[in-house]
Amino acid sequence: MKMNGAEALIDTLLAAGVRVCFANPGTSEMQFVAALDGRDRMRAVLCLFEGVATGAADGYGRMAGTPAATLLHLGAGLGNGVANLHNARRARTPIVNVVGDHATYHLQYDAPLTSDIRGIAEPVSDWVRHSQLLEDFATDAAEAVAASTTYPGNVATLIAPADLAWSEGAQPAELPQMAEVERPPIERIAAAHDALQSGEDCAILLGGKALTGEALETAGRIAEATGVTLFCETFPARIERGGSRPVVQRLPYFAEAAMETLGRFGSVIIAGAEKPVAFFAYPGKPGVLIPDHVNSIGLSSPYEDVTYALKALAARLDTPAGTRDAARSEPAQGTSARGPLDPGNLAAVVARLIPENAIISDEAATGSLALFPATMTARAHDWLTLTGGAIGQGLPLAVGAAIACPDRKVICLQADGSAMYTPQALWTMAREELNITTLILNNSSYAILNVELSRIGAGSAGPQARALLDLSNPSIDWVSLAQGMGVPGQRATTVKELEAALKEAIDAPGPRLVEAILPGL
Amino acid sequence: MKMNGAEALIDTLLAAGVRVCFANPGTSEMQFVAALDGRDRMRAVLCLFEGVATGAADGYGRMAGTPAATLLHLGAGLGNGVANLHNARRARTPIVNVVGDHATYHLQYDAPLTSDIRGIAEPVSDWVRHSQLLEDFATDAAEAVAASTTYPGNVATLIAPADLAWSEGAQPAELPQMAEVERPPIERIAAAHDALQSGEDCAILLGGKALTGEALETAGRIAEATGVTLFCETFPARIERGGSRPVVQRLPYFAEAAMETLGRFGSVIIAGAEKPVAFFAYPGKPGVLIPDHVNSIGLSSPYEDVTYALKALAARLDTPAGTRDAARSEPAQGTSARGPLDPGNLAAVVARLIPENAIISDEAATGSLALFPATMTARAHDWLTLTGGAIGQGLPLAVGAAIACPDRKVICLQADGSAMYTPQALWTMAREELNITTLILNNSSYAILNVELSRIGAGSAGPQARALLDLSNPSIDWVSLAQGMGVPGQRATTVKELEAALKEAIDAPGPRLVEAILPGL
Repeated sequence: MKMNGAEALIDTLLAAGVRVCFANPGTSEMQFVAALDGRDRMRAVLCLFEGVATGAADGYGRMAGTPAATLLHLGAGLGNGVANLHNARRARTPIVNVVGDHATYHLQYDAPLTSDIRGIAEPVSDWVRHSQLLEDFATDAAEAVAASTTYPGNVATLIAPADLAWSEGAQPAELPQMAEVERPPIERIAAAHDALQSGEDCAILLGGKALTGEALETAGRIAEATGVTLFCETFPARIERGGSRPVVQRLPYFAEAAMETLGRFGSVIIAGAEKPVAFFAYPGKPGVLIPDHVNSIGLSSPYEDVTYALKALAARLDTPAGTRDAARSEPAQGTSARGPLDPGNLAAVVARLIPENAIISDEAATGSLALFPATMTARAHDWLTLTGGAIGQGLPLAVGAAIACPDRKVICLQADGSAMYTPQALWTMAREELNITTLILNNSSYAILNVELSRIGAGSAGPQARALLDLSNPSIDWVSLAQGMGVPGQRATTVKELEAALKEAIDAPGPRLVEAILPGL
Repeated sequence: MKMNGAEALIDTLLAAGVRVCFANPGTSEMQFVAALDGRDRMRAVLCLFEGVATGAADGYGRMAGTPAATLLHLGAGLGNGVANLHNARRARTPIVNVVGDHATYHLQYDAPLTSDIRGIAEPVSDWVRHSQLLEDFATDAAEAVAASTTYPGNVATLIAPADLAWSEGAQPAELPQMAEVERPPIERIAAAHDALQSGEDCAILLGGKALTGEALETAGRIAEATGVTLFCETFPARIERGGSRPVVQRLPYFAEAAMETLGRFGSVIIAGAEKPVAFFAYPGKPGVLIPDHVNSIGLSSPYEDVTYALKALAARLDTPAGTRDAARSEPAQGTSARGPLDPGNLAAVVARLIPENAIISDEAATGSLALFPATMTARAHDWLTLTGGAIGQGLPLAVGAAIACPDRKVICLQADGSAMYTPQALWTMAREELNITTLILNNSSYAILNVELSRIGAGSAGPQARALLDLSNPSIDWVSLAQGMGVPGQRATTVKELEAALKEAIDAPGPRLVEAILPGL
């Protein structure tokens, strides 16, 4: 059946299993918008800013394991999506960006919106193609999906000229054959096995695909059999935890703390992660986080089959599947904390209220320091973090996770400063009636930067510097912002208020916002 | 005097006349933040999203004629600023971006925030440098200012590694010698003169620097002497109009209307503009807007001295300076319009209330079709438009214009859909107590896209398509949004309410917002 390019592209995506498109279209994408009619199997979700679309696609891909599409408007629209595509790429999330462009023959005129779309795409994409011919257009789309789903997951960007979209005579294409996932060589499994049998203290640093499903379960079994300590990378894309899941500690954020932590071990086995490095450089501080005296063993890179690697290791250790003592931890009981909120008592409230099978989108910044350990023994949940450090991820990520998993409660733990980069996500939560509770941790400052300012040795901050890290003049009223975008909100200034407001929000079926007022740093 | 790199960079910018820095810093920029203390001559303006910083720098540069700096956080922060840098580049606004990067020796580790900053910068910059050596750092900054102020104005991006910023032993550098602005050759002035003397109907299409000051005044004189019709490009960066300024019509947005308009003339003389082209391609419609039967004469390109060109032309026509009959037009009187608002009666209210010497930031989208002609005879004002088509410009541009011209009232005419890309600008208006009245034209839709959807021949839109262009579910409450960011707001649904609310807002000294509820398209 012949059709126009836009229709063939969408049918190709559908045939390849893409079911959701996070869209912020403009004139050059109108043909795609028109093609969505009558193609109800593709759910089109309108986002009012492109960073919401790309962040939502990241959240969707992390939870669904299959790519969502985005629909973006030329270089400027893609530019607005760059920050969250950066995060998605660091999370190795499968995403297919469809970026509309001028008609091929219109580029010569350098019209006002013309830009180097490929140039903007390449720094945040693992695969980029600028389609040129109608007969290749659907095949290009199929190859984009294939690129995005190549293990462990990639950002693929297809630049789609308007004239290919509106020209008749295209037909859908099929997904090409996918390559097998590579397995790490047996010598590395042997090296890890030898370290675990050596009698010295060992740690396993888990990352990427090692933090969910069979891989995580296997790591838990290995830990039980050998006493090895499990860590996860500082910013995992997704980790299953709580309930009866294996206990996994988080590698500290600050370089010196991470080095001290890892320096206590004779060997560190790395599974599914890159070798850990400092997030930023500081004058006179190291970049690599595994000290020289520690034996570093790469069991499997993020690009190799880490489930196979961990199972092979477990088999050598003779700890067959099903032997893990999956004792269910109990969520912490109510504390008697009263009075004003602080990050510690806030974390305790959250830990108690996380419902079974929840998904946590964590962009709590400094707040996360208390939240992550406090929720270790909460009910079973998935925890998603800011993988690439480009703030403005938390709210959009929650949108995508909620669309991928409509039967699960999503809780977005969101720092105020970061929330201001993509507040438009609240509108999409309201429109799509998403099952999301957003908890804004409002300390009216870029608190992390106050810490960083002192760490770089810049001395004590004067008034101009302090003003640049302060959000209290004026204070942002998140309840009003949420209301403006159709999300009901409540403010909490005490532990008791937070407990009541958060419980009510979590129990409600649709989107809610709770603004927790915390002391400034 | 020796100092660290960050201090030398800021002293260099100050010595070169840069007085304002629109900042959204992160860890890698903390040394610059520290260096701002004790350097009060540099006004640091915090923006809570980078698109606000770059858009504000654009507004500042258009009004001040000198560059503001931005301070942005690595590739992700720059990415958030791409859309408004695209607009600034199309406006040829002088801007100096300072983008922090990891320490030079830290890049090898590919830490989470590492990205190809140059790759992201190049599509939206006329000049990019990634500093590598402390001894060159201040010189690089001076050359960035020189590049940005090279006629008519450019976006210059300096990538600033953290270790250069914190290392001691730097000293400020001086601005290099600037080249003279090139003059168009005499033959082109003669050709324009001949056309004007030929007796056929002529038009002059003015753009860039031809729309302000002596150049505009000269064009007005030529028009009076010869009867030539003056047009401006569809999206001028800045045009002085109203009061006793020359009457300049706007080239229509849609290609067929622009061609019909220009097709009525024997010759079109282009001064300070590029040859006009269609904003988008449409199936079967032309790209170049001057029909073949019209004689197109390039008097001066945007890169040549258009003031000289127009003055030379006026001299040949023997219309000396001071001879223009600068009759002052009167603002339209109050109409008797009653009842609900529509774009037409809204435009009439705005035209009556524009105060003397106001600055208009126009991102009213479809609303602008009525607003621009209605204000032709308003009190004298400057009108700034969306030069690059990357929406989300209006509010940030108003911020920058207000900081450049603290004694003038800024009125931001802002479509609702576009406003949602950079609403964070409202917070900076509140913090800096800027003299800005924002008028939100809320029709709860991407109205322009409804027009475009039909223009591409996609037939009548079905429910999925219509939903992607509709902002009414939920409707955005701009008064709540503004309140959440510290800007007092009022809603108007009738002409009478608008008149009262807008007058009150304009008379107030600080930031105000008025939300005008318009019917959807």
